[in-house]
Amino acid sequence: MGQTLPVHSGLVEHLRSVVGAAHVLADPETRAGYETDWTRRFSGRAVAVVRPGSPAEVAAVVGACRSAGVGVVPQGGNTGLVGGGVPGPDPAVVVSTGRLDRLGPLDAAAQQVTVGAGVTLARLQAAARAGGLAFPVDLAARDSATVGGMVATNAGGLHVLRYGSTRAQVVGLEAVLADGSVISRLSGLVKDNTGYDLSQLMVGSEGTLGIVTAARLRLVPEPTGRVVALVGVGSTVAAVDLVRTVRRSAEGLSAAEVIYGDGLALVCEHAGLPAPLRRRWPVYVVLEAVGGDPTEELFSALAGAGADDDATAVAADPAGAERLWAYRERQPEAVAALGVPHKLDVTLPAARLADFEAEVRRVVAATAPGATTWIWGHLGDGNLHVNVIGPDPADEAVDAAVLELVAAFDGSISAEHGIGRAKAAWLHLSRSPAERAAMRAIKSALDPDGVLNPGVLLA
Amino acid sequence: MGQTLPVHSGLVEHLRSVVGAAHVLADPETRAGYETDWTRRFSGRAVAVVRPGSPAEVAAVVGACRSAGVGVVPQGGNTGLVGGGVPGPDPAVVVSTGRLDRLGPLDAAAQQVTVGAGVTLARLQAAARAGGLAFPVDLAARDSATVGGMVATNAGGLHVLRYGSTRAQVVGLEAVLADGSVISRLSGLVKDNTGYDLSQLMVGSEGTLGIVTAARLRLVPEPTGRVVALVGVGSTVAAVDLVRTVRRSAEGLSAAEVIYGDGLALVCEHAGLPAPLRRRWPVYVVLEAVGGDPTEELFSALAGAGADDDATAVAADPAGAERLWAYRERQPEAVAALGVPHKLDVTLPAARLADFEAEVRRVVAATAPGATTWIWGHLGDGNLHVNVIGPDPADEAVDAAVLELVAAFDGSISAEHGIGRAKAAWLHLSRSPAERAAMRAIKSALDPDGVLNPGVLLA
Repeated sequence: MGQTLPVHSGLVEHLRSVVGAAHVLADPETRAGYETDWTRRFSGRAVAVVRPGSPAEVAAVVGACRSAGVGVVPQGGNTGLVGGGVPGPDPAVVVSTGRLDRLGPLDAAAQQVTVGAGVTLARLQAAARAGGLAFPVDLAARDSATVGGMVATNAGGLHVLRYGSTRAQVVGLEAVLADGSVISRLSGLVKDNTGYDLSQLMVGSEGTLGIVTAARLRLVPEPTGRVVALVGVGSTVAAVDLVRTVRRSAEGLSAAEVIYGDGLALVCEHAGLPAPLRRRWPVYVVLEAVGGDPTEELFSALAGAGADDDATAVAADPAGAERLWAYRERQPEAVAALGVPHKLDVTLPAARLADFEAEVRRVVAATAPGATTWIWGHLGDGNLHVNVIGPDPADEAVDAAVLELVAAFDGSISAEHGIGRAKAAWLHLSRSPAERAAMRAIKSALDPDGVLNPGVLLA
Repeated sequence: MGQTLPVHSGLVEHLRSVVGAAHVLADPETRAGYETDWTRRFSGRAVAVVRPGSPAEVAAVVGACRSAGVGVVPQGGNTGLVGGGVPGPDPAVVVSTGRLDRLGPLDAAAQQVTVGAGVTLARLQAAARAGGLAFPVDLAARDSATVGGMVATNAGGLHVLRYGSTRAQVVGLEAVLADGSVISRLSGLVKDNTGYDLSQLMVGSEGTLGIVTAARLRLVPEPTGRVVALVGVGSTVAAVDLVRTVRRSAEGLSAAEVIYGDGLALVCEHAGLPAPLRRRWPVYVVLEAVGGDPTEELFSALAGAGADDDATAVAADPAGAERLWAYRERQPEAVAALGVPHKLDVTLPAARLADFEAEVRRVVAATAPGATTWIWGHLGDGNLHVNVIGPDPADEAVDAAVLELVAAFDGSISAEHGIGRAKAAWLHLSRSPAERAAMRAIKSALDPDGVLNPGVLLA
């Protein structure tokens, strides 16, 4: 295998002149980590991996690729799960945002900060904490996931229930558009009604309308206390009821997650953890509350919801809280250790969630005999992660069956991962012809040559 | 004056066939109230005022106007202040949303409600309250302002500080696009990452991309207590400092408004109100806090900020709170009673707000000798309303001078009113060439014939 396809060698030379030879990675071994996503299900060929150091360099890279007729795939921490950050069937240039890593000073009065796209979530969280503040979006991939990727996918995670998803934290963005122009809304003015909110349009557009290079983000006061409870219940219906009841009385509720008995057992085995409760339960709910006296509040809410003392483990100290969270947070890696998962991240209306959970297991079993189904998710948001191990990564029958079932239950085929390459063929299940036409019109208007993330979102 | 221009009589007939003759208002006297905005500064000719009763009728009206080459101006409660809801120089069809007035049942579990575009803010607030919930956007025009207009302008108001502007309350929208297609995102799923957020794109687009026909809105728990304080201070600097200090310690702070001594005196005279404090102050701050024990919290925060007891009036009962709010809320009408105001609604960075306030008075005096300047606003958001009485409504010299000053202070030329017709010529002061090009590209993609609100926002 050569270093680059001959037809692209002129482009690679051009890219070297733009960002410096040290920041163009073209040899196959170095490229490999950028060509396959975390699930190992999505993989493509990178003409080169380019690491620009400024918005102007990003713009020049986009211009060079447009001239060469080669697509540009923006990539942050490569923690995406739908193939949206790696090349597809056609070789493309991967723009890695790792060098756009400036983290501005905290603006304590405004509770805001300006952050480069390549800054990791963990680094942002640590900087906010150092100033007595918090960035309220949190997810298990925090050490790798970057601000740019989180904005491009409107990342959700563990605390949407209380603080909203990444969209709700974006005050403004800096982004490079397909024509090489740079839009910049980083001044942090909270009230600014001067036409279309291009920043909000970029959020969740998965790199198809622009490459986010920096974000002005909202921070919140650092929560003063935190308590975590893991509660065993008898059924999904009981779990949904528990969360609804607790939510009504625990104002500080900041997370409400679900895991199942088989998944918890798998995590215990994979990570060498002890069983969290004296007996086994079919379903477990992880609750977190923050604020003034969250322990008191959560205990009284759990009592009101009829939760059994014997079925509840509680931790109000940081180490204990981390230990309880591990049962939920280590689910993805425990399942991925079994094989390449088909990951289906969906939202259901609260009233239909329990029926869906039962039905989806039947549908998977019928579609892919011998496959195993693992379910966990953000119960408070109606967001379930349905993971299927068994079918060949290229076989999409199980994806089709699950997503069609979601549509039949009036849900969304993507809660927080995005559409990417994985679900582009099923976009019609969640978006009407009128909406898809409007999306295509916007894409064509801002990227007429289709240079930005081709094949992602709008196939 | 005839009922309609002859050239448009075919269109009017067509509109009657679409919505029924009773819902096409074509005689000049009935039209008049829809042709001039609240400030009396913006006025145009309506070919007819059409009151459709469904999204399908809105779509048919848009189609008829597009075929006839006549623009469509969506109008809610006609409480806009920038001419965005009335026709401009070319006669246009006004689409009044008053009959789109369905108010769905409260979804208490999800804390959401689906509301027709023509529902007034006051009606929505009352419905939410009846269910123990609240719609957190509030403004003085609540009895007339409609949900559709508030969404189209991303209305701000009194509680942005705590709850965000209308944008933050929009879970999803139903809207008619220029091609007559209807997009509908009313299912209320909180997590739904399936491509471009067309609902958020519509928010603040001032009727230029679509006509909002319904909205799925977020509600909040009804605040359990409320306290209002009116505090006299010596200067704008002192007012900004007071708000910053109080905000740090009063978590429940839900409003922080500013009025000036001359404006307060004018309100007292106009509305027959007594002076609120024993002596006069150059600047007054109105603070509101809600929550557990807001009175205790606000008093202790005010003490911490060094506010003088003698300079503070406090009310924790509803009637008393309304009395204190009146000094702030009746400012606009008291000033409008002096003449047709040039209303300039701007945001400044907190650090530059006091210097701007001093400078803008000098700039107005130099530009329009003899004019009077009245300032009030949402201090906690950096949002000042600069009103100038004196210059001819058609004379834009004072608008230009103030908006250029705002740009020099790194502010936004529109905080919450929008651009409309009033500020379209100065959009470049707040949006870069790259941003305006992107906005124009989106407008052309979704409305190639320019049928929706021509002349508004993008002149």
